[in-house]
Amino acid sequence: MSENNDAKHIIILGGGFAGLWAAKELSKHDEYKVTVIDRNNYHLFQPLLYQVASAGLEPEQITYPLRGTFRKMLNVEFRMAEVTGLDLNKRVLLSDVGSIPYDGLIIALGSVTSYFGVPGADEFAFSLKSAEEAIDIRNHILSCFEYAQHETDPAIREQLLTFVIVGGGPTGTEYAGALSELANTSLRRDFRGLEKDTVKIMLIEGEDGPLNGYPEKLRGYAKKRLKKLGVHGYYNQHVVQVEADKVTLKSGEVIPTRTVLWTAGVRGNKVAEKMGVPLGRAYRIITNPNLQLTDHPEVFVAGDMALPMDGDRMLVAPTIAPNAIQQGTLVAKNLINHFAGKELTSFSYHDKGSLATIGRSSAVVHLGKLNITGFFAWITWLIIHILYLIGFRNRVIVLINWAAEYICFERGVRLILPKAKDTIPHGKADEYEASSTEGSALNNRSVKEK
Amino acid sequence: MSENNDAKHIIILGGGFAGLWAAKELSKHDEYKVTVIDRNNYHLFQPLLYQVASAGLEPEQITYPLRGTFRKMLNVEFRMAEVTGLDLNKRVLLSDVGSIPYDGLIIALGSVTSYFGVPGADEFAFSLKSAEEAIDIRNHILSCFEYAQHETDPAIREQLLTFVIVGGGPTGTEYAGALSELANTSLRRDFRGLEKDTVKIMLIEGEDGPLNGYPEKLRGYAKKRLKKLGVHGYYNQHVVQVEADKVTLKSGEVIPTRTVLWTAGVRGNKVAEKMGVPLGRAYRIITNPNLQLTDHPEVFVAGDMALPMDGDRMLVAPTIAPNAIQQGTLVAKNLINHFAGKELTSFSYHDKGSLATIGRSSAVVHLGKLNITGFFAWITWLIIHILYLIGFRNRVIVLINWAAEYICFERGVRLILPKAKDTIPHGKADEYEASSTEGSALNNRSVKEK
Repeated sequence: MSENNDAKHIIILGGGFAGLWAAKELSKHDEYKVTVIDRNNYHLFQPLLYQVASAGLEPEQITYPLRGTFRKMLNVEFRMAEVTGLDLNKRVLLSDVGSIPYDGLIIALGSVTSYFGVPGADEFAFSLKSAEEAIDIRNHILSCFEYAQHETDPAIREQLLTFVIVGGGPTGTEYAGALSELANTSLRRDFRGLEKDTVKIMLIEGEDGPLNGYPEKLRGYAKKRLKKLGVHGYYNQHVVQVEADKVTLKSGEVIPTRTVLWTAGVRGNKVAEKMGVPLGRAYRIITNPNLQLTDHPEVFVAGDMALPMDGDRMLVAPTIAPNAIQQGTLVAKNLINHFAGKELTSFSYHDKGSLATIGRSSAVVHLGKLNITGFFAWITWLIIHILYLIGFRNRVIVLINWAAEYICFERGVRLILPKAKDTIPHGKADEYEASSTEGSALNNRSVKEK
Repeated sequence: MSENNDAKHIIILGGGFAGLWAAKELSKHDEYKVTVIDRNNYHLFQPLLYQVASAGLEPEQITYPLRGTFRKMLNVEFRMAEVTGLDLNKRVLLSDVGSIPYDGLIIALGSVTSYFGVPGADEFAFSLKSAEEAIDIRNHILSCFEYAQHETDPAIREQLLTFVIVGGGPTGTEYAGALSELANTSLRRDFRGLEKDTVKIMLIEGEDGPLNGYPEKLRGYAKKRLKKLGVHGYYNQHVVQVEADKVTLKSGEVIPTRTVLWTAGVRGNKVAEKMGVPLGRAYRIITNPNLQLTDHPEVFVAGDMALPMDGDRMLVAPTIAPNAIQQGTLVAKNLINHFAGKELTSFSYHDKGSLATIGRSSAVVHLGKLNITGFFAWITWLIIHILYLIGFRNRVIVLINWAAEYICFERGVRLILPKAKDTIPHGKADEYEASSTEGSALNNRSVKEK
């Protein structure tokens, strides 16, 4: 801890990509005392969260203790706390462990899932934004297979083995591919007599194919790959209602299912509404082009929460890790310049490219003018993800998991752990035939409650 | 699946060591159809559970999907279900997924923690018998360190940083060593300004030292090692009461603490009480020397639940993995002999030795006439545990974790995950000084609720 008592105190809210890169930048300037606040004691590598939800990786391998990261940053402290509000005028942060005064503030609390007001979605659909949610989804899906084995009612069995993914962005696309592979490799070996066509994976997307915004060549490839993996693409289609045992599409079609994963949209962290800050589209915080609050120049916003506006024009700022890293670094520099009375730099997103994997040996990569697909794109995807993962041990273990998966066509983390007692509450059963997979009836089972 | 419809149906309750080894044995005989039932979809390697509770290993690495194990045992099926009772006369198992008829039954549901009726122990002490419990303890201990950092009241801070382990058997001894190393290596680097003497680890044991039953030389070594690791040994001492913020000893001494881990005793799984089977000491099921129910010769018991009696004499059967493996194999053979009308073999425990590790590079191993301590004992301990661990991937990753721990003096899994919201409910806080570890007051915090 710096002993400089005149040091200005900077609070960084959030230990995600934006907060972490801001802290890295500020750690070079020991005239500042920095406190990073997060509700979790770890950094979560969100780009691989879908692999936890598909039993490919352990949650421990895509998380890293924040205190470990800050050990060598001597002017940076960590506090595990939940942000509850803000007093912008008094420059005091409110949290569940008390109020904390600051000289400068960086808000980088990320986004949460947005259900766009679709009835039932908030209540019945799963979201994939936290480690807990990823574990919940994994446990739920594995439980669906377990319960389907006991089930005699074919209608309920169909609900249990139909998985609906809403949103064909990178998360939805990558998850659809991973889930299809989980079902068709490991789980088909685990559950004898499980027919290939019994398990249905649906991808519902409002545009005419997956990966909207990617070059057409890559989108075409992704669409073809998903089809080959057995994913049923419902394109130009919207969900209008989610219920405990079905999803209704705009076309009127009804899909019976107990599992809906909603990846169709994000909005700013809800705590922003308690902060007295100006909110814009998708509940993001409106900033000037320097990512600064106009009325409170000592407050900056970075990552998914920031909505930089140049007058009426929104600046391009996608809700992805590279953007959060760029903004996190920039707000730290701007904060320092602000206190030094120097000119600030306005934000402009450097598109370093985009990439997504669609199952085994297959990915799409868009880097500058380069558009590649297939095996080499997949290797590129692997390398980039390993490099950005924090922690040497994590990198080694993730590589081992991927190698095992590649060689053995196997997903190692097929564990319902911790036991999710209420995910699929099951009703009374009748007779059970030990020799048959068409065992007893399990009726009146309801889906997860939020 | 065997197509033999005349095949007798054997149910094995429990996928622990006893159940798994019984299934292995029965898989060689496809004249039997076997159904293994467990409430979890994985086998848990309990001997390393304490390493999960001390942030050294991921829970995923000491668990293995049972369906993966049974893939190649074509006459063995798995069902995830909770056993609710038994109709011994009708030969029907009752479960939460229905009733299942059997021809032969093997009961191997293991043990749970026994608190010997000590007031408050059941309510306030942690138990270390399941993956969930190990994760809970890890999360709780890491949270105690986090909250201690906010804490200004020195009395509460002391409670938060005092950890009491009740029972100096192998689990308590190994855990005391591991916890001391976690606190003194990783966590002292994570929490700047944490003084060595601030964290107290107490081991309370009724006998005159740890590892009762081990040769005296090994016990002396273990006692010395624990002392060197800073563990406060309270020997010839008993706990008479556990409360939310303290433990009272028989001597009258009161230890302020929010963390009590109870490893002092086990008893048979509570479902035995609903089975109509004869129960003996520690609620174990009384069997004849063949591990068979006298009144129901088609029912066998193996592992921690079995209490084999030769008349009034209890046969030696310690509640450890090697015994469960021996009994699991034997009951399968006896069951086959029973149906074949052949003579059964009575159980006799082959003591293959005992071993325990006490922190880094240090263990005690008792094998036949061989008593070794120190580094070579530790290597022996490592090799044996790796060999019994199921799954090649698990072995590799555990080895990597241990290597990283050994080389870097680091525990990798310092993650509060899933977030245990209610483990340490925290009250209202006052002011917070960002520059001080003596931050705000967090009062009225209570310990975990069961």
